[in-house]
Amino acid sequence: MSRKVGIIGMGHVGSTVAHGLIAQGAFDDYVLIDTNEKKVTADAVDFRDAAANLNQHANIVLNDYEALADADVVISALGNIKLQDNPNADRFAELPFTAKEVPLVAKKLKEVGFKGIIVAISNPVDVITSLYQHYSGLPKERVIGTGTLLDTARMKRAVAERFGVDARSVYGYNLGEHGNSQFTAWSQVRVKGQPISNFTDQATLEEIAHEAMIGGHTVFYGKKYTSYGIASAAIRLAIAVVSDSHEELPVSNYYEPLDTYLSYPAIVGREGIIEQVKLTLPADEEAKLENSANFIKRKFAESLN
Amino acid sequence: MSRKVGIIGMGHVGSTVAHGLIAQGAFDDYVLIDTNEKKVTADAVDFRDAAANLNQHANIVLNDYEALADADVVISALGNIKLQDNPNADRFAELPFTAKEVPLVAKKLKEVGFKGIIVAISNPVDVITSLYQHYSGLPKERVIGTGTLLDTARMKRAVAERFGVDARSVYGYNLGEHGNSQFTAWSQVRVKGQPISNFTDQATLEEIAHEAMIGGHTVFYGKKYTSYGIASAAIRLAIAVVSDSHEELPVSNYYEPLDTYLSYPAIVGREGIIEQVKLTLPADEEAKLENSANFIKRKFAESLN
Amino acid sequence: MSRKVGIIGMGHVGSTVAHGLIAQGAFDDYVLIDTNEKKVTADAVDFRDAAANLNQHANIVLNDYEALADADVVISALGNIKLQDNPNADRFAELPFTAKEVPLVAKKLKEVGFKGIIVAISNPVDVITSLYQHYSGLPKERVIGTGTLLDTARMKRAVAERFGVDARSVYGYNLGEHGNSQFTAWSQVRVKGQPISNFTDQATLEEIAHEAMIGGHTVFYGKKYTSYGIASAAIRLAIAVVSDSHEELPVSNYYEPLDTYLSYPAIVGREGIIEQVKLTLPADEEAKLENSANFIKRKFAESLN
Amino acid sequence: MSRKVGIIGMGHVGSTVAHGLIAQGAFDDYVLIDTNEKKVTADAVDFRDAAANLNQHANIVLNDYEALADADVVISALGNIKLQDNPNADRFAELPFTAKEVPLVAKKLKEVGFKGIIVAISNPVDVITSLYQHYSGLPKERVIGTGTLLDTARMKRAVAERFGVDARSVYGYNLGEHGNSQFTAWSQVRVKGQPISNFTDQATLEEIAHEAMIGGHTVFYGKKYTSYGIASAAIRLAIAVVSDSHEELPVSNYYEPLDTYLSYPAIVGREGIIEQVKLTLPADEEAKLENSANFIKRKFAESLN
Repeated sequence: MSRKVGIIGMGHVGSTVAHGLIAQGAFDDYVLIDTNEKKVTADAVDFRDAAANLNQHANIVLNDYEALADADVVISALGNIKLQDNPNADRFAELPFTAKEVPLVAKKLKEVGFKGIIVAISNPVDVITSLYQHYSGLPKERVIGTGTLLDTARMKRAVAERFGVDARSVYGYNLGEHGNSQFTAWSQVRVKGQPISNFTDQATLEEIAHEAMIGGHTVFYGKKYTSYGIASAAIRLAIAVVSDSHEELPVSNYYEPLDTYLSYPAIVGREGIIEQVKLTLPADEEAKLENSANFIKRKFAESLN
Repeated sequence: MSRKVGIIGMGHVGSTVAHGLIAQGAFDDYVLIDTNEKKVTADAVDFRDAAANLNQHANIVLNDYEALADADVVISALGNIKLQDNPNADRFAELPFTAKEVPLVAKKLKEVGFKGIIVAISNPVDVITSLYQHYSGLPKERVIGTGTLLDTARMKRAVAERFGVDARSVYGYNLGEHGNSQFTAWSQVRVKGQPISNFTDQATLEEIAHEAMIGGHTVFYGKKYTSYGIASAAIRLAIAVVSDSHEELPVSNYYEPLDTYLSYPAIVGREGIIEQVKLTLPADEEAKLENSANFIKRKFAESLN
Repeated sequence: MSRKVGIIGMGHVGSTVAHGLIAQGAFDDYVLIDTNEKKVTADAVDFRDAAANLNQHANIVLNDYEALADADVVISALGNIKLQDNPNADRFAELPFTAKEVPLVAKKLKEVGFKGIIVAISNPVDVITSLYQHYSGLPKERVIGTGTLLDTARMKRAVAERFGVDARSVYGYNLGEHGNSQFTAWSQVRVKGQPISNFTDQATLEEIAHEAMIGGHTVFYGKKYTSYGIASAAIRLAIAVVSDSHEELPVSNYYEPLDTYLSYPAIVGREGIIEQVKLTLPADEEAKLENSANFIKRKFAESLN
Repeated sequence: MSRKVGIIGMGHVGSTVAHGLIAQGAFDDYVLIDTNEKKVTADAVDFRDAAANLNQHANIVLNDYEALADADVVISALGNIKLQDNPNADRFAELPFTAKEVPLVAKKLKEVGFKGIIVAISNPVDVITSLYQHYSGLPKERVIGTGTLLDTARMKRAVAERFGVDARSVYGYNLGEHGNSQFTAWSQVRVKGQPISNFTDQATLEEIAHEAMIGGHTVFYGKKYTSYGIASAAIRLAIAVVSDSHEELPVSNYYEPLDTYLSYPAIVGREGIIEQVKLTLPADEEAKLENSANFIKRKFAESLN
């Protein structure tokens, strides 16, 4: 019945996601939504100006919530990145903005009868994902955040560079909040056929974690936003959903033991989170996860007030 | 021997070109160059942060002209788009900036012994392409500008929307300068198995041309730059070169009858312009082409001073 | 709602179509059908054995007509190519076999409530397409044959080789029956910016037509079947349908002026044939088309008895 | 400098590899070689007949060893599958045929100065890979066999089906001979965040291993050859080489501790085997590996006589 995606918020990330999907012909129908009519129109015309030189056709409609009724996936990329452009700011700087927008968007999705999967990129992503679930009334498994899928990719990049392998040949995950409390579950990371701890000491692992994190800062301070890494994560997640791939991905999903959304590996498919995997983590990593969970829960509770 | 591309200038267009190529695995080795070290580093890290979620590997090096010695294609996307952000400005507003940069870049390419194909996107593209050929000393057929490949895509988009067909099912070209003097060679445009003139009168054709042009303005004024349309044109051209496809494309190439670079359809392959096609244009279109040529020649002469 | 395709008949062509679609991730859900349970199972396992090394997921089910109820496209590749392996045989050698199978398949599609688009590859394709429409009760525009999309590709290949251009830079079509009475509408063929007749005389055009045709024979006699060319045509057509591309393609569709299915360019989209284009052909080409039509009509009438 | 691949042997596997590569535009230049001139010509024409309906251009030349001088990769798919079509036959049934062909091919590659990477698919692949290295005189790291990359994919398929996950979310390898002595190194297999042994007992693992193996038989006995699984493995390996991806892949490479080619995970790049990983295997798996090695060594020694 054709693949249909909605993208809400056409800033740097939303438009990069849309471009990536359109350029590879990942979906058939695109519903692009932004309150800045000029920007969303500009992007849509720019995509259409690409059509004659692309290999696949894209049907693009603008600012039409009704058209989302039968979408497979709605990607929320709304936000206001300028709020982060301040030496003391972090991803929570955007929360006052997005916390106001999300209920409005969720309500509209509910009104049109959207029954697909919400993929949230907007930051702080774990709180935003929780808010989308709260206001949309969709079952928990149908609302997913990109979460640490990006942090994991950054960790893999840092490990890959150090070990001289492709990032796709590094196994493992970053867990918890997509924010300052996230951490690499080093107990799970494998490279070159071994647990990474067989090759390195704790100090080196901390160095690698620092390289992974500092990379994100390099991107943000070098161009005032990040786009390609996060867009690739969102695209991979959206394709996993529509193709019902059942890939295991570390994404923000509801973690019952700690009663909150946070990033934890799960099997992803057309019905959203098909199943959460069960990791066996050492006590220090469990503690970090709980710390991350408590932080997200507090912020989520605050955002509801 | 693997595909290698250089991209010079990592502004909106250059980084969109790089992302598009990397996301589809079009090349193996990427040499990204920008005088703004922070920006090019930010983009490179952002691309690497995407690696774990992409399907193909990309080897990325930064600001290394030596690495361009054996590149298949070097794409010049340098420019300063802010110079165009002014109600009275057009693509020539960037010329003072780019006319200074191009000789420096061309000299470096010459020094490292680059023997591939230069693809210029930088505006005003016909003049810039001429300057690259002039300063690099490469044979004329090895220096190509994206030219009206974008304007043609815009015309096809406008025709496609009006006739209810895919943009790839519209045949024809825009010719001349990638600038205000460009024009659609309506005598060549075909849609639904007929010359377009069988369906429409002159007034309608002018309306369509206006829609094509105004689209570009909508993009520019809606987001202060254009990126996806032009990037898709450059990507198509770069792939035509490296794959030696011999596609017929309306790109900026040296047109001997009028002794200047301008956009005119040509067969493109690994050696650059393999052959220029010979159109049979009515007198009014020939006049427009000559007008366009004269304008480019004058601007090129001025830029050499 | 995800993309779903059915493929009926897993011989050389059907399995090559399935592989091409799966390898590029063109659809999400695949329903593969063949009366030879062993062969379809073998192919399905072989596809699944590829999964770990492919970039996209494919959901594959076997011999389940119910699963076709909500398919976007059903591709009929059933046939018995061995019946053609005889010096005196042509595509009609398979008719006694397929004419018996088609009503059974069409009836099952009707029973399960299939409402998508039928794409017929089975030969003789124009008659088979007519039979599918007849027995399925689907509106004429929802039943399409690959027709001369392959013959057109062969013509473009022959023209491309002679003129030193990419096959995609040759414009034009072969029309009529996908069989001995098909012909190139040379009046419509353009290459290097000109009608092909500006470059060649009639004798040369006949030589090119011969090269196009003899190529098909070379393939058939060299490997006892043809697969890659026809599969690529079917894949392009299926993607045009599901993506609602509105591409203009020369495919077998109902041509009202001659009251028969035959190949004639049409705009293809999610609803099947969106619109048939209107060519202006010279009298000799119109006569050939009529000749082709009469042949198909007679064979179709015979096949109903 | 463009990507160039040679494919030697255009049987079911060779032509499926060629088609897969061409359809996705993985290389620019293809050199197809087969002693059966009719078959290789048939396939080449069939590929060219697809060109107008594909998204990327392919340059195809036939039976020209000189053209392999600067190829990145040469894939050997030569063989005679009919020799396996016998209830008592296995992959070694082809050895008398291939053992005669390989020295001839290797000698020609040496004569033309081929310096790329040989990827052997021909069976029995470990012996054939050894023979290619022996006769070509290429360094050991530049001759690789697809080995258990296919068996690993089959194991992943079987595990994936049982656990309800995507095959790409199963981690681990089959090791040793691509033949009856191969085995899954269950100690290395992980799924859903755990070693597989946390979920299953030994009997179940043997059942899964059986399902993986029986799948290959189902394919072979259902269609008399296998093609898509093995082609996808070869394509993945060839792309890893040309893109210098440094992916970790279980392929047939020289294993110094046991002085033979066998499948063992290695980092693959443009220089072939960049580095072999070091697994920590339990004694029973080490014993199986040694058993596999002894078998390959004996067969290799015999094949040199």
